[in-house]
Amino acid sequence: MIDPMFLDTPLYRCEALEPDLGCAVSVKLETANPVRSFKARGTELVASLLAGQGPRAAVCASAGNLGQALAWSGRARGLDVTVVASRFAPAVKLDRIRALDARLELVDGDFDMARERAAAIAEHDGIRLVEDSLDLETCEGAATVGLELVDAASSFDAVLIALGGGALATGVGHVVKALAPGVEVICVQPLGAPAMTYSWRRRRVVTTDSTDTIADGVAGRRPIPAVLDDLLLVADDAVLVREESIIAGMRMLLHHAGLVVEPSAALGVAAILEDRDRFAGRHVVTIVCGGNVDLDAYHGWVGAAPLR
Amino acid sequence: MIDPMFLDTPLYRCEALEPDLGCAVSVKLETANPVRSFKARGTELVASLLAGQGPRAAVCASAGNLGQALAWSGRARGLDVTVVASRFAPAVKLDRIRALDARLELVDGDFDMARERAAAIAEHDGIRLVEDSLDLETCEGAATVGLELVDAASSFDAVLIALGGGALATGVGHVVKALAPGVEVICVQPLGAPAMTYSWRRRRVVTTDSTDTIADGVAGRRPIPAVLDDLLLVADDAVLVREESIIAGMRMLLHHAGLVVEPSAALGVAAILEDRDRFAGRHVVTIVCGGNVDLDAYHGWVGAAPLR
Repeated sequence: MIDPMFLDTPLYRCEALEPDLGCAVSVKLETANPVRSFKARGTELVASLLAGQGPRAAVCASAGNLGQALAWSGRARGLDVTVVASRFAPAVKLDRIRALDARLELVDGDFDMARERAAAIAEHDGIRLVEDSLDLETCEGAATVGLELVDAASSFDAVLIALGGGALATGVGHVVKALAPGVEVICVQPLGAPAMTYSWRRRRVVTTDSTDTIADGVAGRRPIPAVLDDLLLVADDAVLVREESIIAGMRMLLHHAGLVVEPSAALGVAAILEDRDRFAGRHVVTIVCGGNVDLDAYHGWVGAAPLR
Repeated sequence: MIDPMFLDTPLYRCEALEPDLGCAVSVKLETANPVRSFKARGTELVASLLAGQGPRAAVCASAGNLGQALAWSGRARGLDVTVVASRFAPAVKLDRIRALDARLELVDGDFDMARERAAAIAEHDGIRLVEDSLDLETCEGAATVGLELVDAASSFDAVLIALGGGALATGVGHVVKALAPGVEVICVQPLGAPAMTYSWRRRRVVTTDSTDTIADGVAGRRPIPAVLDDLLLVADDAVLVREESIIAGMRMLLHHAGLVVEPSAALGVAAILEDRDRFAGRHVVTIVCGGNVDLDAYHGWVGAAPLR
């Protein structure tokens, strides 16, 4: 059900990164597609199933990437898509959602406020609410990244996964733990948006009052209980990284791999930078999960300091 | 014989480019692999064949990308690789050749002088001379890009191919003309390095005394007669573009597609920019053939002016 354009994405060693990171590093590149993130794997499933049913409309809350992906998948199938996002989301994400013919509604708050608004719209209009990470299709779609990884799993030791709502981490984690149990599944979240990591560590939902991170794609405050339950089954670890490490990771991915990525996609490299001893001599795969970034902000981060 | 890592590269529509270009544009992305260009498709063939034979050594001249690719493919098969390049080649290309354990010899001249030196080394040492675009394996490797394109050829009208020595143009052109003859094959070269285009137009080899272009990957002065013969059979057109169009193309690929590319990889977009009427309403594929670029130079080009 997923357009092949979103599948079998590049997976390759980046040796130029390795002197600085002290381990073998491969990237799984999810940015080279029409929506520049892995999210379409899930929205293709959602939209395919929905297109076969009755009312052909859906609404989702999004930090930006899910909304863009649902807009793309919905447009391809004649669905009426509404996206609710924070007005503080990167302009490039909001612009692309509009360009894909979705109705975009902005809330004067963060992603968790957008979730409330999307739920209200769904109830009022009687249309499908697509809940990222809770709706199993979003996790199953993300899990196809894991299927592609395990085909090559004999060669690596750990996979680093950006942790936001949890679709990518539970989807990939489920597949990896089922089919390549020797591979360590490590989730990475910013210190400035630690709710799911705290929840994983305490084995119960922990919410926070606010977030403070440039990694807009993973900045949630209220973990979904059912997603936490899944994450507890499949994650070997969940680590938190500093903002300066995320920026250093983005800079290294540009300078040594030629990749312009959004902050969430640099979380894996940031995790290696913060704990080189843990990864020394191992082969680590990091999922470069998205590349939708405002270039002005990007240049401010990445150009602000010399490479090392 | 080609490592699958280099095959089945992303091919996708970039709608964000289209308002400025006035046509449907898809990119075939050849930068998401360990050598960041399409050249490994050919060197994988060369090295595989060579590894099965006697003397396990080879030398090539390179503008930078072939050398990096031959170093990669040779290292994987225990071959002894020597690369001859201009000392004016981008540092990032030379650094990566050295990092891949190849012997690098620099000449105080341009690519065509490096070709002469490589031939002398091959003769003196009695080792295999790998001649890009002349050796059929280099064209056959590049032709696999064409095979992947024709699988999707029903949906597009023209393919834009960077023209340097001619391996990519003759390889892709041969496959496209054989299997999807309705697709227009358009080669693109910088006005500052027009020798092969002039040769194609006059149907005889035309050399130039010098080159003057930022597109280092395609800056040759002396077309190879046998390659011209092939190009005459498969190219529908060969066009020349200005430096400012190449820079505008690089800038658009960054801003609208999130891709950092070397100048040669922006030739296709440059060709559309210079002749919007020709492509209006059509669906064009441009092969983004390489991403090895010195970032300081890149920022100087791309950051030097506003987007439009």
